[in-house]
Amino acid sequence: MSERTHLPADPSYEARIRDSFDRQGAMATIGATLDLVEPGHVVVGLPHSPRIGQQHGFVHAGMLAAALDTACGYAASTLMPADAGVLTIEFKINLLAPARGPHLRCEGQVAKAGRTISVVDGRAWGQAPDGAPVLVATMTATVMTITGRDGVRH
Amino acid sequence: MSERTHLPADPSYEARIRDSFDRQGAMATIGATLDLVEPGHVVVGLPHSPRIGQQHGFVHAGMLAAALDTACGYAASTLMPADAGVLTIEFKINLLAPARGPHLRCEGQVAKAGRTISVVDGRAWGQAPDGAPVLVATMTATVMTITGRDGVRH
Amino acid sequence: MSERTHLPADPSYEARIRDSFDRQGAMATIGATLDLVEPGHVVVGLPHSPRIGQQHGFVHAGMLAAALDTACGYAASTLMPADAGVLTIEFKINLLAPARGPHLRCEGQVAKAGRTISVVDGRAWGQAPDGAPVLVATMTATVMTITGRDGVRH
Amino acid sequence: MSERTHLPADPSYEARIRDSFDRQGAMATIGATLDLVEPGHVVVGLPHSPRIGQQHGFVHAGMLAAALDTACGYAASTLMPADAGVLTIEFKINLLAPARGPHLRCEGQVAKAGRTISVVDGRAWGQAPDGAPVLVATMTATVMTITGRDGVRH
Repeated sequence: MSERTHLPADPSYEARIRDSFDRQGAMATIGATLDLVEPGHVVVGLPHSPRIGQQHGFVHAGMLAAALDTACGYAASTLMPADAGVLTIEFKINLLAPARGPHLRCEGQVAKAGRTISVVDGRAWGQAPDGAPVLVATMTATVMTITGRDGVRH
Repeated sequence: MSERTHLPADPSYEARIRDSFDRQGAMATIGATLDLVEPGHVVVGLPHSPRIGQQHGFVHAGMLAAALDTACGYAASTLMPADAGVLTIEFKINLLAPARGPHLRCEGQVAKAGRTISVVDGRAWGQAPDGAPVLVATMTATVMTITGRDGVRH
Repeated sequence: MSERTHLPADPSYEARIRDSFDRQGAMATIGATLDLVEPGHVVVGLPHSPRIGQQHGFVHAGMLAAALDTACGYAASTLMPADAGVLTIEFKINLLAPARGPHLRCEGQVAKAGRTISVVDGRAWGQAPDGAPVLVATMTATVMTITGRDGVRH
Repeated sequence: MSERTHLPADPSYEARIRDSFDRQGAMATIGATLDLVEPGHVVVGLPHSPRIGQQHGFVHAGMLAAALDTACGYAASTLMPADAGVLTIEFKINLLAPARGPHLRCEGQVAKAGRTISVVDGRAWGQAPDGAPVLVATMTATVMTITGRDGVRH
């Protein structure tokens, strides 16, 4: 989905993002893992489990949204300066097919990296019974780069 | 936020929705509770806890989205026939302020109840240090009424 | 839809906004009028005409979106300093019912006015054959306050 | 952006869509043209003109949204039966850069073609001063296939 090549502004972006991910209680609670961190591109894995299911046993749309939102936010973060924070302003998700596993792959890919505002495309893939990948959700997330005390008010 | 008065098509809507909620593993995992079920209006409560936090300790946007999406889906479901299912097609959330608690109140209110497609407004309220309510997120969710085998393909 | 009372930062906000509206060729082309400008609240009128219709004769969703987006952007602008510009980052619209007139009323109401980012709710009303108002669309718009050369890159 | 190959259900889809486009007063009013119609993929062109500008002379976000929404709706329509109609349920647009021309290329590409609900990705490209394409907006549109009297209520 990438429109262009992105260069990170911070050579230690991966360590910074992995450290941040590890401090997210929500990601541990839903069992998400940080599977890939590249410039402008992050993959979060989400193993299917009844603990994150909805009433029919598929992965709850909100749990999928949480993993995708995380992938999108960190994808933008890979391109930010080391001292910047990332704030999700809004996201929108379309649920295309029931989210079944055993494993969901949630990708964030930066569409536009701006000084203040970045836009990230998210895609989540589940698996068909034969193991073939199935696109189960698409997301667009708008995130803001925050520096200094900007995080206090937005 | 209601534009008009809604009448439920199924007198046992509350029992049906409470039963469905109890079968959602994801809601138990994040600690959400079903606090109010009225025609066209549902409130889901979400106690703040490090288990659903992001890296700065606020409630993760995805956890908030999960609780709001649930409130919105059930709000639409209150107006559906007893044998209908509800499927979220898409939702969009704006994060307005850091989500802090001790308690988040996530409301879904039907804006338009259609035969096939319903649109629901969601609002999540946190608390300021003095206990005053703070609007932390707004959502719009589009849900589909599914009957019979419609749930298989959408 | 207002959550609180808003105070304008610029006493001449109405003249500033009317002047800006008059410079929008698109608004003249679709026949839109600026009907009300209040702090945090703007109404744009859109007379139904075949010139803005889609293939079935209703108002084209995009024309409605254009009028609503304008109402939302200016609603945020009423609360900004005199030298600030307003930039729409994104908007989302749900079409609830066929948009018929003779007159569409497109309202923007600020939900959250932030230093950098504001979120505005939009609602468009058409008319039933008996003249009763019909909610035909809802919008959420995210807008950014731009000052100085910020407008060049975002 | 395509995830798979799409096959049209109606061999005369192009004639059907061109005929529908020609009946859209709004498209003539803003000067849009139907430049490409393929299975699952439609391109609408929009020449830059002061008639569709906003206060700074760029193309108004709403005019761009109208052209993109049209491209997205017809992209879904290419895959529908001959007697089906297409109804936009909702769309969301992110504005990434000022929309300048001389010519805007607005593409719709089906991400998921469903029996009832289809999801379409939209992208709009403008031009830099040196003529290089610039991605100016992304859209996600959710459209519904309507048959028989379904169009009356949704």
